[in-house]
Amino acid sequence: MNEFEIINKYFKKLTKNNPASFNLSDDIFYDKSKKLAVSIDTYNENVHYLNTNSPSLLIKKIIRSSISDLICKGIKPSHIFLSGSGDAKLFNKNKLNNISKSIKEELLKYNLKLSGGDTTYAKNSSFSVTSIGFGNKIIPRNKAKYNDDIYVTNNIGDAFIGLNILKKKFYINKKTNKYFINKYYLPDLPIKFIKNISKYANTSIDISDGIFSDLEKMIIDQKFGFIININKIPISKNLKNLISKKKFNLENIISNGDDFQTLFTSSLKNRGKILSIAKRINLKITRIGFINKNPNKKVILKGQKVLKLLNNKGYYHKF
Amino acid sequence: MNEFEIINKYFKKLTKNNPASFNLSDDIFYDKSKKLAVSIDTYNENVHYLNTNSPSLLIKKIIRSSISDLICKGIKPSHIFLSGSGDAKLFNKNKLNNISKSIKEELLKYNLKLSGGDTTYAKNSSFSVTSIGFGNKIIPRNKAKYNDDIYVTNNIGDAFIGLNILKKKFYINKKTNKYFINKYYLPDLPIKFIKNISKYANTSIDISDGIFSDLEKMIIDQKFGFIININKIPISKNLKNLISKKKFNLENIISNGDDFQTLFTSSLKNRGKILSIAKRINLKITRIGFINKNPNKKVILKGQKVLKLLNNKGYYHKF
Repeated sequence: MNEFEIINKYFKKLTKNNPASFNLSDDIFYDKSKKLAVSIDTYNENVHYLNTNSPSLLIKKIIRSSISDLICKGIKPSHIFLSGSGDAKLFNKNKLNNISKSIKEELLKYNLKLSGGDTTYAKNSSFSVTSIGFGNKIIPRNKAKYNDDIYVTNNIGDAFIGLNILKKKFYINKKTNKYFINKYYLPDLPIKFIKNISKYANTSIDISDGIFSDLEKMIIDQKFGFIININKIPISKNLKNLISKKKFNLENIISNGDDFQTLFTSSLKNRGKILSIAKRINLKITRIGFINKNPNKKVILKGQKVLKLLNNKGYYHKF
Repeated sequence: MNEFEIINKYFKKLTKNNPASFNLSDDIFYDKSKKLAVSIDTYNENVHYLNTNSPSLLIKKIIRSSISDLICKGIKPSHIFLSGSGDAKLFNKNKLNNISKSIKEELLKYNLKLSGGDTTYAKNSSFSVTSIGFGNKIIPRNKAKYNDDIYVTNNIGDAFIGLNILKKKFYINKKTNKYFINKYYLPDLPIKFIKNISKYANTSIDISDGIFSDLEKMIIDQKFGFIININKIPISKNLKNLISKKKFNLENIISNGDDFQTLFTSSLKNRGKILSIAKRINLKITRIGFINKNPNKKVILKGQKVLKLLNNKGYYHKF
């Protein structure tokens, strides 16, 4: 079984009278009357991250991954609760100093309040983050409309390269390595877009498991397909160079997740507005395709060529 | 370092502008304007629990341990978010069925809503629970008053015996073993007391780490001492029998935690009221001592004899 099968089979039925849980099919809880949004994420060593060798960067990545669930929904995260488990390899003076400093920087950067947590012993380290925020409205999943444009913020794919450099799968050069590793640890969250995304997005998700698999998840309960032009998916100059130099396969690299960018749909009439907002707030927002009516028509084009769809299904936990 | 030293040294300073976090010195977050209380707890295999051999019972214990943090503060828990990490030893059909059934029973018993969570792979299992509730008021720590009576709900010590039976440290008989094991896994939370505790308690805590260490924690920032008569600490008939039969040391057994009862203080004038509420709601509430003015006078009496204080400091995580 994988995580989604487990949730669907054993836990979804327990949320029948709780619409705020979205049947556990979203990464978020939103209570309308309290205007409260909550997101919970767990990160395990060797699974979600390789090790705790770079605690300053790791804790930032963990915080950003967590608040990303709120940001993509148009909710400003306000409070985080951080639980860390580990042994003396993690909880020693040097690493704790670095972690504390990093948390402080993130609190300032995103205007968050550290509001609680837990410090417990475990042989293998893990983190659990609860992020909360308040807002009058939340952008749900599964509310795309026919013919909606599909957009994504910032660049895709850099994080996956960073991860592979950390795994020592390849080496570029010191400077470029550092660029990609930083993109892995420090995703550029589209926080400046929060105020506007609620106005223009019909549906949204953050890209954690892979752009194509998260696109599928975003509209999983809808009878819709999509057409994406892979050449339009925004990638960095560094990634462009790397792909041409190493003859990497573009679609494999961008479908692996850890991007923490926002994927959303919006009606055609908003194109101009979104363009001008992007310009004003200086955020890259790229139109990469559109929603179509045929659920069997999930097409990824590379120029004129139709790619074999979703050979990489994105990351999911198997048991 | 232990967990408290770590929190004090590295994390407390990050919460300066966030009174709702109580400087991380309470197990709870409470935002007055939103009337929102949040508690986060992590449970790791081999640390917080022995194994996942009894998933039906284990998940109940985990849920109860978590909502206990709210209940002891006079806040009715309303939503829980459950994250589980593990491998196929935990996430298989049989255990998942049991876990799902148990969660359902707890949701009904405590009128909770399952509102989210996470299902992730890890070699060693762990759980993380976020419990939230709403209330106009919360009972804080460190607000005991001079001469306050000290009370505790239900019985203390059964859970520790249950844990030791599970660890095969001793064997009593099948029926009595089952009694204690159930008390370990299924603490009798004083949920019926929620409506009234806010009216009468000045300060409170739940007993998770041990009655004496949690009593110290409850008033740690106050310049107060206490006098407790250990013979007044309520224990079950089964525990009484066991202690006399096995010549166990009473104070060692009751100071080990996992009780998840509420410890609180209240002024003398409320004695009658508390007694009559206890009777009405059919909940054992026992007066076990009082707060005194001298912070150096932390006395535990056994009849006329003064016990050496706190030779068992309760459970804390060391790194």
